[in-house]
Amino acid sequence: MSRFLNEQYRSLEAYTPGEQPRNMQYIKLNTNESPYPPAPSVVEAMTAEQVELLRLYSDPTAKELKEKLAGLYEVQPENVFVSNGSDEVLNFAFMAFGGKGVLFPEISYGFYEVYADLYQLDSEKIPLEPDFSLDYRKYCGKGKMVVIANPNAPTGMSIPVWQIEEILKSNPDSLVLIDEAYVDFGGETCLPLIAKYDNLLVTRTFSKSRCLAGGRLGYAFGNASIIADLEKIKYSTNPYNINRLTLLLGAATVDAEPYYQEKCREIMETRSWTKQQLENLGFEVLPSDTNFLFAKTETMDGGALYEALKARGILVRHFGNPKICQFNRITIGTKEQMVVFINTLKEVLL
Amino acid sequence: MSRFLNEQYRSLEAYTPGEQPRNMQYIKLNTNESPYPPAPSVVEAMTAEQVELLRLYSDPTAKELKEKLAGLYEVQPENVFVSNGSDEVLNFAFMAFGGKGVLFPEISYGFYEVYADLYQLDSEKIPLEPDFSLDYRKYCGKGKMVVIANPNAPTGMSIPVWQIEEILKSNPDSLVLIDEAYVDFGGETCLPLIAKYDNLLVTRTFSKSRCLAGGRLGYAFGNASIIADLEKIKYSTNPYNINRLTLLLGAATVDAEPYYQEKCREIMETRSWTKQQLENLGFEVLPSDTNFLFAKTETMDGGALYEALKARGILVRHFGNPKICQFNRITIGTKEQMVVFINTLKEVLL
Repeated sequence: MSRFLNEQYRSLEAYTPGEQPRNMQYIKLNTNESPYPPAPSVVEAMTAEQVELLRLYSDPTAKELKEKLAGLYEVQPENVFVSNGSDEVLNFAFMAFGGKGVLFPEISYGFYEVYADLYQLDSEKIPLEPDFSLDYRKYCGKGKMVVIANPNAPTGMSIPVWQIEEILKSNPDSLVLIDEAYVDFGGETCLPLIAKYDNLLVTRTFSKSRCLAGGRLGYAFGNASIIADLEKIKYSTNPYNINRLTLLLGAATVDAEPYYQEKCREIMETRSWTKQQLENLGFEVLPSDTNFLFAKTETMDGGALYEALKARGILVRHFGNPKICQFNRITIGTKEQMVVFINTLKEVLL
Repeated sequence: MSRFLNEQYRSLEAYTPGEQPRNMQYIKLNTNESPYPPAPSVVEAMTAEQVELLRLYSDPTAKELKEKLAGLYEVQPENVFVSNGSDEVLNFAFMAFGGKGVLFPEISYGFYEVYADLYQLDSEKIPLEPDFSLDYRKYCGKGKMVVIANPNAPTGMSIPVWQIEEILKSNPDSLVLIDEAYVDFGGETCLPLIAKYDNLLVTRTFSKSRCLAGGRLGYAFGNASIIADLEKIKYSTNPYNINRLTLLLGAATVDAEPYYQEKCREIMETRSWTKQQLENLGFEVLPSDTNFLFAKTETMDGGALYEALKARGILVRHFGNPKICQFNRITIGTKEQMVVFINTLKEVLL
């Protein structure tokens, strides 16, 4: 830390991303990436001519991509925001709308707490229930910004849309942010509610179901006035926030929707198979609407299991928080990868 | 604006980027992009395999790129920060280090004022001298963060490094940020001073001299503790701030240094030619160490000239600020583009 850092950031604890080994030796089941490449038409969209055009700035309005997303999800372009990964829109939302305080589950995406601390927001962490479910009533009538990942991470569990509607109705003067990063793997979207509630912001990402984690592309849906506020923050920090190639590939991705639907279906099938295998081995596995499973076993400590798998070339994600430290979060890879994972697990446990 | 936007952002005025027409009809001399494509080896680095790897997150530590930049500029990797365009590192620096207030030239990159307002910093704008030069003595001994673009924009004029050293010496407890976005077109870098002054941050960009405006890649040099602070802000907002393809192309760009040196030389030659032509037409042209010229004529209003050129298919940049509204900022394109520009100017003026 330098002598020059402003007082308020001195004790800030930054987010710790999952390990990103630069060698490709591991079967990487730790950061919820897709095991599948982008659609062939997306790969083909990257021509030498497009790379040469990098001499020119990207379109700060992201007009084409917004129009394509609006078309696919049946909203208007003014209801769409696009960002440098969904972390950026989360960051902007905490900055812009958190002034009256913010409320989020105690066990959820770890970045919510970092954003709340960064902007020195009055934050309240609501414990999950003993079975890791989320009781929506604890978020009703609070008069603060509400942030809920649905499905939640790292649990993988969802709440139904009617419960989100109750939260929206009971906090009419506060923004309700529903983080749908994982919604494409079996969750139910609350997107249609943006037409009915002006306090709803729904965030999404191309990192998981759209096989573009390394492209950095997030998006969000909401009332036009909320989107305008996010644009204002963007134009006050980094107007050219998305590079040309990611804008190009994002648009090509929207055009290749059937490919991604198919890949999501494959991941859900592999998830069912993996869950069954884990249960056969005596694991407790939480219900999952995501591209990962959250599982623990009585027969081995969570941290020890993580280390044992890593030593055998398989990376999963382990969290130190005592409430979940017996669990590991296992990204769903290809069927072949998950067969190796299960076989390795058998070796480790026996 | 929504009902939910925090009070402090309600009156914020965002930055207005230069026009980015999506059709390519214009000769585009308005946003200081390079007229040249990236080096052939950079274009070739973009293989289908690299696009397929987008399913994986980018390296949040940007290790390879930092090492290459450190090698080229003869510093250590811990003295290097890389960002999603240099706007991002400017944003982080204002956020992290501006607590005691910030000082910058009244006429300079317009974003400095936006960042100061965004973070509600006590800001002081120092007028330039009547000839648009910058009197370094006005920045000495102020005890606030100092931000100077050197060369400055939109004037194109530089101050010598010994004057920067005086500013550094006389503000030992405040960060001094020198924005070297345009330094490769004839300016003198103050980079060696980072070894001597722990309060110096030097920012750079791949957008101008490295032909990658659309790739969004900026970087900065400073004492390791300042860089660590910037990393902390990055890991508290968007750890994967740079996408995989831009990291790849950035590294390939560093490897192609001779190509970019040659292109900078060509732009400086074309700048000399263009300046002479403008002076022959009776323009006053400020001295330029950048890839643009700032020029005015007695015979036509600056705004009218901008409009007349635009109507003829040439975009330049005009600023409404009354102190500079008689000028236009003209990016240096290829020699062929500048010949068309000068001929069009003759049509407009005659």
